[in-house]
Amino acid sequence: MKYPKSFEELLECFKTLPGIGEKNAERLCFAVLQSSEDQAKKFSDSIMNVKTKIKKCNICNNYTEDADICEICNNQGRDHSTICVVESVKDLILFEKSNAFKGVYHVLEGLISPLEGINPEDIKINELINRIKKEEIKEVILALNMTMEGETTSLYISKLLEGTGVSVTKIAAGIPVAADMEYLDSLTIQRALEGRTEV
Amino acid sequence: MKYPKSFEELLECFKTLPGIGEKNAERLCFAVLQSSEDQAKKFSDSIMNVKTKIKKCNICNNYTEDADICEICNNQGRDHSTICVVESVKDLILFEKSNAFKGVYHVLEGLISPLEGINPEDIKINELINRIKKEEIKEVILALNMTMEGETTSLYISKLLEGTGVSVTKIAAGIPVAADMEYLDSLTIQRALEGRTEV
Repeated sequence: MKYPKSFEELLECFKTLPGIGEKNAERLCFAVLQSSEDQAKKFSDSIMNVKTKIKKCNICNNYTEDADICEICNNQGRDHSTICVVESVKDLILFEKSNAFKGVYHVLEGLISPLEGINPEDIKINELINRIKKEEIKEVILALNMTMEGETTSLYISKLLEGTGVSVTKIAAGIPVAADMEYLDSLTIQRALEGRTEV
Repeated sequence: MKYPKSFEELLECFKTLPGIGEKNAERLCFAVLQSSEDQAKKFSDSIMNVKTKIKKCNICNNYTEDADICEICNNQGRDHSTICVVESVKDLILFEKSNAFKGVYHVLEGLISPLEGINPEDIKINELINRIKKEEIKEVILALNMTMEGETTSLYISKLLEGTGVSVTKIAAGIPVAADMEYLDSLTIQRALEGRTEV
């Protein structure tokens, strides 16, 4: 004995999502079953809309809907001479939420990782370089994770931009605000020391 | 700056599901966006199918699809004279997975709870009594949670069935298999002692 066919199918779909196991998937299926028909229709439609309507910005690879160019690239109030290079749209949103950056972005869609077979040509580095050649860019801010892959990618991009006159910077490594120092690794401590500033 | 409109809509839908917060909903939206169009279509369709195709069994309130009577009630190989009373379809499935019961079920769809304003007439107790009057029932097994609500509901049903000649039993309370006794509450220990059997 199992659940009805449609229920099992939805269960399988939920289980393909990250972090959703058997028990959780069951709970979500029951929630869908108990939701109103309107709510279920909205859910069902929005899944298809996300797949069919969202595309990538022709300039920066951010997500965009109803237009070829994303809202940020289209916003003339922003500083188009400063590009912040991020790994993913998720990271871009994090920066936007911080309200600390008024330039434009470039989404790499990955990081160089020889171990996983991800080479420079597999991510959007060429697109970044072409963009820098075409547009009037003053500064490229590398805002990648402080991991081996992130550091490698930052180094690779900065080498490519050597001698172009574009200023290449990297966001600061250090102690996260409100973090308990007790739980930080030695490398973070080391970076925080190296990057110390006068008070 | 926010995500594109469709993305935000799907985010809202995920956030209405139990146990899914902002961060998790984001992660699930990205997963949908990165899934194949086929997979997204399957997901989208199965949500609507669950809402439109699944109905309740006319006899026991279990879920059923393509028929008015569920697979269990329809199965002549099962013992139709023994009814196991459960709170929800979720519990029914748990019993089915255990393979320990070959009778039929009755799903109450809730438990009596004066605090939450759930009275006997709000759950499927009348339907159970009518069923017992009409069918040839030998035993009713009460398989409800060992909570105040479960105990109240069990007591209520057993009172209603007094003098009908139907044997009313309750599943055993005791120590869960493989549980560490250290973490059990006194009431469970007490019930386990009361229900002790000869070795």
